[in-house]
Amino acid sequence: MKKVIFVAGSHKASEHSLKLAEEVGKEIAENDCILICGGQTGVMEAACKGNSESNGTSVCVIPSENKKDANKYCSIVIPSGIGFGRNFILVNSADAVILIEGQAGTMIEALASYLQKKSIIALTGSGGVSDKIKDTFLDDYNLTKILSAETPKEAVELALKKISGKGF
Amino acid sequence: MKKVIFVAGSHKASEHSLKLAEEVGKEIAENDCILICGGQTGVMEAACKGNSESNGTSVCVIPSENKKDANKYCSIVIPSGIGFGRNFILVNSADAVILIEGQAGTMIEALASYLQKKSIIALTGSGGVSDKIKDTFLDDYNLTKILSAETPKEAVELALKKISGKGF
Amino acid sequence: MKKVIFVAGSHKASEHSLKLAEEVGKEIAENDCILICGGQTGVMEAACKGNSESNGTSVCVIPSENKKDANKYCSIVIPSGIGFGRNFILVNSADAVILIEGQAGTMIEALASYLQKKSIIALTGSGGVSDKIKDTFLDDYNLTKILSAETPKEAVELALKKISGKGF
Amino acid sequence: MKKVIFVAGSHKASEHSLKLAEEVGKEIAENDCILICGGQTGVMEAACKGNSESNGTSVCVIPSENKKDANKYCSIVIPSGIGFGRNFILVNSADAVILIEGQAGTMIEALASYLQKKSIIALTGSGGVSDKIKDTFLDDYNLTKILSAETPKEAVELALKKISGKGF
Repeated sequence: MKKVIFVAGSHKASEHSLKLAEEVGKEIAENDCILICGGQTGVMEAACKGNSESNGTSVCVIPSENKKDANKYCSIVIPSGIGFGRNFILVNSADAVILIEGQAGTMIEALASYLQKKSIIALTGSGGVSDKIKDTFLDDYNLTKILSAETPKEAVELALKKISGKGF
Repeated sequence: MKKVIFVAGSHKASEHSLKLAEEVGKEIAENDCILICGGQTGVMEAACKGNSESNGTSVCVIPSENKKDANKYCSIVIPSGIGFGRNFILVNSADAVILIEGQAGTMIEALASYLQKKSIIALTGSGGVSDKIKDTFLDDYNLTKILSAETPKEAVELALKKISGKGF
Repeated sequence: MKKVIFVAGSHKASEHSLKLAEEVGKEIAENDCILICGGQTGVMEAACKGNSESNGTSVCVIPSENKKDANKYCSIVIPSGIGFGRNFILVNSADAVILIEGQAGTMIEALASYLQKKSIIALTGSGGVSDKIKDTFLDDYNLTKILSAETPKEAVELALKKISGKGF
Repeated sequence: MKKVIFVAGSHKASEHSLKLAEEVGKEIAENDCILICGGQTGVMEAACKGNSESNGTSVCVIPSENKKDANKYCSIVIPSGIGFGRNFILVNSADAVILIEGQAGTMIEALASYLQKKSIIALTGSGGVSDKIKDTFLDDYNLTKILSAETPKEAVELALKKISGKGF
């Protein structure tokens, strides 16, 4: 079974965040992990692009039931047909989660990951949700602290370290 | 078609929040609306209890596929079998949303409601998510402001006002 | 908790089947049960219509995330947003299932009900799936036999008998 | 985007069907397609095993939200957390469908594929649903005929032919 890293972030992102996402996608491929994401535009598309250029495998679980709604860099498209309920499938599939920028939708994914005590890494300097929630707990139960990383390379390395520490 | 008010909140709640939830459930019944909720313990159970005691109808969409996992005050149990993806079904079903206390799970429901621009009312003084997010927007897109109410009666009245303003 | 009867059938149905469905909806109301169905046209709409005219309560779990896609006789609309995956939610919710006419979609609902060993009653003379599968098992495991009834009244009576026999 | 073949069949299968499934998994790998399946035992496990031994990639969408419930030959596990609603995700993801043996659950997958007019190939001689529905339509709308193949090699070749004919 391959290790799976979930990249979550804005469907409309800054140029800077897109570059970060592309790098994260590349690092995931080079570390022989699977990229999983929501398969839409913005951070998702950029991560798939970087992953694809490094011959990685991305699994894109999209809201609709039509493959054509995925971005063109996805290697394997899973049309969930369950709308944004697919966010929970992404979280279930993740061995670790990397957040890049992000607004309300990304926050839902962060919270769902938190409730499952996944290793969550906020890539700092990308703005949005990532910078807001880094180094915090997301509610009063202190289930798992949101970690932070300053570069794509550091984010993926931290994800891998957490995954191997968990014995996956 | 009946008007539907979604009550979201902690599955483990304070005595004060449970009283508030019970009152909200009662007010919903007395205003001839349907109560929809997650059908579990805490705020959900208290809302169903209050609703039941005023001869209301509560529809409880639970995570599991087994009716027996619902609290005993639910009038109609919908076992979704889709886990916490059921949160989105609750939001889709709502004409308005009332938040009572709440932690990470409730925050997911608030965010999903926000993304759909539902009328969302935080019952203040209940602690948790409700007090934290009242009178704010939940991301940089300012889709809809979280409203607030100080009593159960005021919360349900505000919900009804918002619903009728939308022409339901 | 109320007893729930799931009515499944064609979204395009014969005049005869529509009349049967309307009668079934009426019988469900008169026996103080909840009607649950897919909330679309044909058999579903007719069952809701009959139910509504007898002041019953119908819960309609529709595929889309938009309430407006339900037929106009639904009392409570649950927009699942999960497409035809909602068929499983209907089955999970049912204490008994009545089939009227039906094609491939209804057959999926019959099979899902069969796998859960629900009491399934095919209303005969309605054509389609109902007449094909009455008095049979749906696979080699013989989990539960598809029962049959010749009239709407008989179908609902049989459903109630089965439900009470199961101790609901 | 990679071509995806969905293999559906019994979770308890005959020795003969398991061998057929293993061969189908192998053929899918050797033709550089992705195998998608339900990730459980029987036909699913055998297809993953054959695929794995030929260095293929299998994507396994399982009912539960726990990766550990997948069979050990899956390369990428997607824990849907939506129970048997995941059958629709498998169908949505498929460019073509191959049926091996099968009982009620497989019949649901065949019907869902039929409703989406997918290319469906029943591998004959495997018993169960496959032999029963080959060369038929599944309801009165004649949406798409169930094709048949006598060997694993022939089944995968037919799937590929259908996929390319559709311009994927």
